[in-house]
Amino acid sequence: MAAHGAPPRRVALGSGAEFDLIRRLLAGEGELPAEVLVGPGDDATVLEGGWVLSTDLSVEDVHFRRDWITDVEIGHRAAAAALSDLAAMAARPVGVLVSLAIPPEGGADAQAVHAGILEVARDVGAVVLGGDLSRSPGPLVVDVVVVGRVGEAALRAGAAAGDEVWVTGTLGASAAAVRLWASGRQPGPELRRAFAHPVPRIREAQDLVERGVVRALVDLSDGLAGDAGHLAAASGVKVVLEAARIPVAEAARSTLGDAALEAALHGGEDYELCFAAPAGGVKGDELSIPLTRVGRVEAGAGVWLKQKDDEARPLTRGGYSHVQGDVS
Amino acid sequence: MAAHGAPPRRVALGSGAEFDLIRRLLAGEGELPAEVLVGPGDDATVLEGGWVLSTDLSVEDVHFRRDWITDVEIGHRAAAAALSDLAAMAARPVGVLVSLAIPPEGGADAQAVHAGILEVARDVGAVVLGGDLSRSPGPLVVDVVVVGRVGEAALRAGAAAGDEVWVTGTLGASAAAVRLWASGRQPGPELRRAFAHPVPRIREAQDLVERGVVRALVDLSDGLAGDAGHLAAASGVKVVLEAARIPVAEAARSTLGDAALEAALHGGEDYELCFAAPAGGVKGDELSIPLTRVGRVEAGAGVWLKQKDDEARPLTRGGYSHVQGDVS
Repeated sequence: MAAHGAPPRRVALGSGAEFDLIRRLLAGEGELPAEVLVGPGDDATVLEGGWVLSTDLSVEDVHFRRDWITDVEIGHRAAAAALSDLAAMAARPVGVLVSLAIPPEGGADAQAVHAGILEVARDVGAVVLGGDLSRSPGPLVVDVVVVGRVGEAALRAGAAAGDEVWVTGTLGASAAAVRLWASGRQPGPELRRAFAHPVPRIREAQDLVERGVVRALVDLSDGLAGDAGHLAAASGVKVVLEAARIPVAEAARSTLGDAALEAALHGGEDYELCFAAPAGGVKGDELSIPLTRVGRVEAGAGVWLKQKDDEARPLTRGGYSHVQGDVS
Repeated sequence: MAAHGAPPRRVALGSGAEFDLIRRLLAGEGELPAEVLVGPGDDATVLEGGWVLSTDLSVEDVHFRRDWITDVEIGHRAAAAALSDLAAMAARPVGVLVSLAIPPEGGADAQAVHAGILEVARDVGAVVLGGDLSRSPGPLVVDVVVVGRVGEAALRAGAAAGDEVWVTGTLGASAAAVRLWASGRQPGPELRRAFAHPVPRIREAQDLVERGVVRALVDLSDGLAGDAGHLAAASGVKVVLEAARIPVAEAARSTLGDAALEAALHGGEDYELCFAAPAGGVKGDELSIPLTRVGRVEAGAGVWLKQKDDEARPLTRGGYSHVQGDVS
């Protein structure tokens, strides 16, 4: 459930090399102080008083290339990605702190990047609260810290066997844009927009939680398979997705063909929401954007995919034990 | 004064190219929400409930070089620099969020950097609350977000004409180490330690504020001239430093000679405290580290330096108007 009297303090992460490293880095950490309501492992940290914090790093030539998008769009994208973590907690944005490492002349224009960040921040009611500036000897680096506030945070934990799994919007378009650029082609306007101008689902998350239908919530930054894996691990359940139900973006499908499903599952950076809801609790017309039931929660672990033959196969390491004591 | 019923919401910054850019980036920003008690321009942001936030960026080949210090020391230094911003508010550390961009093989060891961060965090009672990880195509980048808590924050504003200006510890050793490395020499152990293992003055700041002697407080990250300039700008006063009183580190003086004063004034990264106190309010033996009166507060603007001839000359652009409306 979204409302928790005593939420889990540390949250189990799903599978993946980045998360293995994070698990190692967090290993051996002591008790969290009582004034920290949700610690590492959810989409954001929650502090006493309902303050919600998260930080999101965007690095040139890792997350974006400057010959793909403009400096304003680099800022826009970095801020939207960071704010999506507030959506994932159903939090109301308050502000951002912006750290920029700026390459020498000929590199990115700090004011343009900042303008892109401001544009998205203003759209969701957030102001600039601080930050840091540095030169960079190489890539442009943008680290956006988001600060939000929430009454009761929606968490990754809370899904139960029998729940339905839903997603907002359509998936795979941003990853399809990256695949086209990487192969020397130009994405069309819809794919390009998905990558350069993602919209954090702030309002939608609050709407869904207010309707009381959200048991567990995550945002889709790493692809549906990976992020549903976080929800499954944090909730201690199995998520079974149905391939035919996944709302792959039409522009991704018409460009990538069958590979578009792969982009939706593993591509990432859609910044849509994925949530578990009680069976029958969601009709699908609650929001002004598409809402699609993509699967079910069962007893077990990991994320599984049912394809045409109706047999579910594991998409993530379902048998892996994610309890903190198991961290190597 | 440290205690403010209605603290300044946005804080005027002192002079310097970085601050000119920050002023431009913050230009045009709207009103801060009421739940934000101190906004951009002080050492940290203060939120309702006494939560204090700041972020500090450390970039390879800008802030450090990997042939100067170890990966553990890189983490140590980055965390100490960030935590020093909590000292500057007299806040109690609660946690850190750590964003790392890690170069490919042969670059820094993420776990060693993280171990250095943890070492300093634990020393001051802070835990890891979250973070982000990325590859880097070039430099190691460490962004440390610090989260603290305070009853009433010590601010940069509050100094009044007639106050004394004090600093903790000794100055210039870290900058002296950098100057030696940059000229191909090896700093001795004391200078090296000042650069690699700065100690954020968390306890000392709280002690001084509890004694009721702190009217305005800043930490020394950019050199005494620059940081006293922030205090002067935020307080709307002039700071007059006396060269002969500045506690230049002996190891810096014995290595750099007369240039050591320059390192103390403009070198930066000492992470000591500088504060304004009512005349006669501080004896100098309050802490277990040196406390030195370095000057006085007068009506006016900017930072001025008195040398042997007893005539004060401007160290910063004292006549510059730092009010928000003046931002170009």
